[in-house]
Amino acid sequence: MRILAISGSLRAASINSALLRATLRLAPEGMDIDIFDGVGSLPLFNPDLETRVPPPVALLHNAVAETDALLIASPEYAHGVTGAMKNVLDWLVSFEPFIHKPVALFNTSPRAHHADAALREILKTMSAVIVEAASISIPLLGAGLREEGMVDSPAVSSVIRRALTQLHSSVILQAGPGPTFPLP
Amino acid sequence: MRILAISGSLRAASINSALLRATLRLAPEGMDIDIFDGVGSLPLFNPDLETRVPPPVALLHNAVAETDALLIASPEYAHGVTGAMKNVLDWLVSFEPFIHKPVALFNTSPRAHHADAALREILKTMSAVIVEAASISIPLLGAGLREEGMVDSPAVSSVIRRALTQLHSSVILQAGPGPTFPLP
Repeated sequence: MRILAISGSLRAASINSALLRATLRLAPEGMDIDIFDGVGSLPLFNPDLETRVPPPVALLHNAVAETDALLIASPEYAHGVTGAMKNVLDWLVSFEPFIHKPVALFNTSPRAHHADAALREILKTMSAVIVEAASISIPLLGAGLREEGMVDSPAVSSVIRRALTQLHSSVILQAGPGPTFPLP
Repeated sequence: MRILAISGSLRAASINSALLRATLRLAPEGMDIDIFDGVGSLPLFNPDLETRVPPPVALLHNAVAETDALLIASPEYAHGVTGAMKNVLDWLVSFEPFIHKPVALFNTSPRAHHADAALREILKTMSAVIVEAASISIPLLGAGLREEGMVDSPAVSSVIRRALTQLHSSVILQAGPGPTFPLP
């Protein structure tokens, strides 16, 4: 199972990016998490460019088309979704493989409910399937933990592991029962 | 009086940009409207770059510092503020001259209330002063009007003119009574 993780922050010391790197290290067997590193290379969305998408957008499209689910961790800026995160989504609005894609939301600040709510509204409008059981809110902002500390913290790592297990089940459920074979 | 107008769409045929161009032509005497043409040149916001802002951001900062008020017209993408528009605002979050700046919002689609509400929440969080009397919602999306048609339409042009008059008064009021002179 392939999971594409996207951070909505371009800051080198971003706690959201650190959470995704920690999550990658905690992934259960059979789940490959890939962190999309092209957020900062995307041009600002312009519908005029959609007929012939720029190469960085083609990379995003390919990554989304090939993934079984998305994992988004994005900060709140001024009570809103970051421009960088919304720009990623703007490029996916009319991208057919995004429709019905399972999405887990990791929120690093329970107080940042405005951006979280806005992100949910946007994703629902784009016909993504928000996997609530795999979406978590962890008070990491200001906790002083970095990637290593998140992996080492039993409290944090267990919440992440549980979310990934839920995401795994949810993707398998959504994929349906698979091919059936006649009983012998 | 100087007004800086910003469109949240990069599309060449954008109805929001057309509305701003029409508004520029309808400005009353004593009001200079300047349309910011650098939205598409801004890099995606990254807090790490704030200590030494990139040249396109410096242009935005200078334009905002020198204006008496802002006029924003931005479309709704997937029930959210466009990434391009939020990116402009992300670069202004910790820019001191933006604080208490009067802002008029022109909405070209009354049905697009999600992005309008999100934009208001973000602007209030950034300590801008939304000038409600100068903020209008005109059903232009799908009306087939372009810049010329908006200027020529008595219905549309009168709504724009009234908004500009209100913005003018509001800026003067906020600026205070000005220097007083001794009575003769």
